[in-house]
Amino acid sequence: MQDPRKVEVVFTPDLFHHYNSKNSVVVVVDILRATSAICTAFENGADEIIPVPGIEEAKEYKKLGYVVAAERDGKVLEFADFGNSPYNFTVENVKDQKIAYSTINGAKSVRLAQNSKLVLIASFINLSAIASKLREIHEDVIILCAGWKGKFCLEDTVFAGALVEKLTGGGLFYTRCDSAVASLDIWSLAKSGLKYYADKAAQTDRLRRFGKDSDLDYIYTTDTSSVIPVYHEGLIKDYQRLMKDQ
Amino acid sequence: MQDPRKVEVVFTPDLFHHYNSKNSVVVVVDILRATSAICTAFENGADEIIPVPGIEEAKEYKKLGYVVAAERDGKVLEFADFGNSPYNFTVENVKDQKIAYSTINGAKSVRLAQNSKLVLIASFINLSAIASKLREIHEDVIILCAGWKGKFCLEDTVFAGALVEKLTGGGLFYTRCDSAVASLDIWSLAKSGLKYYADKAAQTDRLRRFGKDSDLDYIYTTDTSSVIPVYHEGLIKDYQRLMKDQ
Repeated sequence: MQDPRKVEVVFTPDLFHHYNSKNSVVVVVDILRATSAICTAFENGADEIIPVPGIEEAKEYKKLGYVVAAERDGKVLEFADFGNSPYNFTVENVKDQKIAYSTINGAKSVRLAQNSKLVLIASFINLSAIASKLREIHEDVIILCAGWKGKFCLEDTVFAGALVEKLTGGGLFYTRCDSAVASLDIWSLAKSGLKYYADKAAQTDRLRRFGKDSDLDYIYTTDTSSVIPVYHEGLIKDYQRLMKDQ
Repeated sequence: MQDPRKVEVVFTPDLFHHYNSKNSVVVVVDILRATSAICTAFENGADEIIPVPGIEEAKEYKKLGYVVAAERDGKVLEFADFGNSPYNFTVENVKDQKIAYSTINGAKSVRLAQNSKLVLIASFINLSAIASKLREIHEDVIILCAGWKGKFCLEDTVFAGALVEKLTGGGLFYTRCDSAVASLDIWSLAKSGLKYYADKAAQTDRLRRFGKDSDLDYIYTTDTSSVIPVYHEGLIKDYQRLMKDQ
């Protein structure tokens, strides 16, 4: 692959089939809150994470001895160990653990992307680390926003814009994708006050109604971690740890 | 329907099924160039327009005596009367005529919307007229962007933002839709130099390659017409003319 390489943005999993993902690295993003929580878990030493879409599937993993993170409408499910807030993924809760994480939009997205060259998991927490890794890997990039129940969502788009800026800014990547251009423009409006801009997102309202808005300060703080979570055959692992073990 | 009413934006036909269109007015927009050309045709006295997706279907209408507008890759198809540029829809070419207009993205969109309360056709050319009509009709509004082969496109989004601004600005409409918020923000960046902003769109590049960029000056000039094209049972008619005939 010659430089500059192509970067594209897909606004929801429903549009993913329009893109040539087989020959690209796919970066999955679900800012509120799946990919933010997953990055936090690896920062705090988790061994592996299985993203599961359904509650029944999560229950099965509980029986198999997994630590289970699962909530619906802001409430931790009774069989789960804790809910989906990144604040739950502490060293005490996750170090060296195998975790099943219940996430509808996030799980759907990583599964969709599984036939691409590589699937990385991104959030503001590991933004710069992901950008560095993508510069190293000589492949085209597709940023797949998990969205909300198939619809476009603002917070994933803001992140996509931030990542497109980092990639195209250095000259190693170009874009001719309208979604990437729109993401860059949304990011240009958001970046001077990220958390305030993100207030416009419908999902921010939902989290606030569930009393989960304290998560936002953490989620919108960039580069607190350098983990590179990788999805492969149903499992998310930490790239560095994976390389060390091989 | 109580005020304020809801306005939402759908970025591509592929996402339309996520929205409750049955109880809404749907505004279809395909700025480059189907809905811009259709508005022009009615401004110049066209009787009716049949949007057809395929070339074979367009040929059939030609045999039935319709005036046919059809092009592919910037070239007028040999059986057609003229191509898809709004500049072709002159009084001489369209007055009192029945026209079959070949448009893949536009035809798909109006057909998808046909089970809604009403389907209107919009472009920058009739922006204010459409906004006035929507204020009169006491229904929720969905703006359906035709996009490009199922993907998001920038020029339809810019228009959606302009229309959302007109509707929510007066207080009769509200939005809690992330796509509408993003459209408003894109429009806020575009409106001071619409044609220059639209240069970023991939479709602008395509038109330029086909030597059709002179269309852009016309297409991005707002409010040159007050027509309200309405789609109903496979046909587009001019609302005012329709009312007069009844």
